[in-house]
Amino acid sequence: ARPKVGYFYSGKQMEDDFSEKIKELKISEIKSVPVVVSEETTVYDAIVNMFLENVGSIYVVSEGGILVGVVSRKDFLKNTIGGLDINKIPVGMIMTRMPNIVTVFPEENLLDAAVKIIDHEIDSVPVVEEVQQEEIKQYRVIGKISKTTIARAFVELFKNI
Amino acid sequence: ARPKVGYFYSGKQMEDDFSEKIKELKISEIKSVPVVVSEETTVYDAIVNMFLENVGSIYVVSEGGILVGVVSRKDFLKNTIGGLDINKIPVGMIMTRMPNIVTVFPEENLLDAAVKIIDHEIDSVPVVEEVQQEEIKQYRVIGKISKTTIARAFVELFKNI
Repeated sequence: ARPKVGYFYSGKQMEDDFSEKIKELKISEIKSVPVVVSEETTVYDAIVNMFLENVGSIYVVSEGGILVGVVSRKDFLKNTIGGLDINKIPVGMIMTRMPNIVTVFPEENLLDAAVKIIDHEIDSVPVVEEVQQEEIKQYRVIGKISKTTIARAFVELFKNI
Repeated sequence: ARPKVGYFYSGKQMEDDFSEKIKELKISEIKSVPVVVSEETTVYDAIVNMFLENVGSIYVVSEGGILVGVVSRKDFLKNTIGGLDINKIPVGMIMTRMPNIVTVFPEENLLDAAVKIIDHEIDSVPVVEEVQQEEIKQYRVIGKISKTTIARAFVELFKNI
């Protein structure tokens, strides 16, 4: 079933206003729900979680959903064949850690997210909002944009042309 | 300044022709070079190959580049944490085997490939051409369309709008 989100337009009008429509594809409307784990989760449990949810990357958060890291299927595979004891090592030891994570804000558009994904050669970007916590600027995870999100939007945008 | 020659369209007209541009994005023009291995390659060597080439899926071929299987990062991770002896097992034992592989022909367009990728929840489709071999219809791998190809095309199409 077609998801009920805001960016579906029919036939002729779609073509006329096309560039407008693309610009209006706001992250806040098309983001997916991210899979998150805590830093103490074992690598094994994180991988199982990833398979259960059928996603290619998961986000590591602290209390309140604050973004602390990202782990991809590629990171897991690299560490697993590297002989890591995945039942003992926590995911915090192998994740990419903030501030070395490329993020996107909900008011940006899908094109902004796609440019970041292509330029940084990553599979997804966490959608975040800024929060002040103990006078430090932090980022709460509120969604995810992946290459799958982009491919799906591409299909939804053009399948009726 | 914009050069004054006949084939530059200004804003509005370009928008009108947008759906045409999408339909003209032929697979043959935008496909990437696939990474291929033989069926006897060990799982370990195939994974190393995948990392060296920085791709998310590889194609398994027989003599003449005939498609026999596909293996993704996800397949590798599943089997690796499953305790498989990756130094001994050949990739042929864990791959998805023909005819259970979704493929695309060079004369199809990017939208066709994107629909297949989304509908079948896969990361890429091999681009193939039909060949007759010993009176059997087979498929030679001549390229690859992945979610990365789609995301890159999305950026290239829209970054200047």
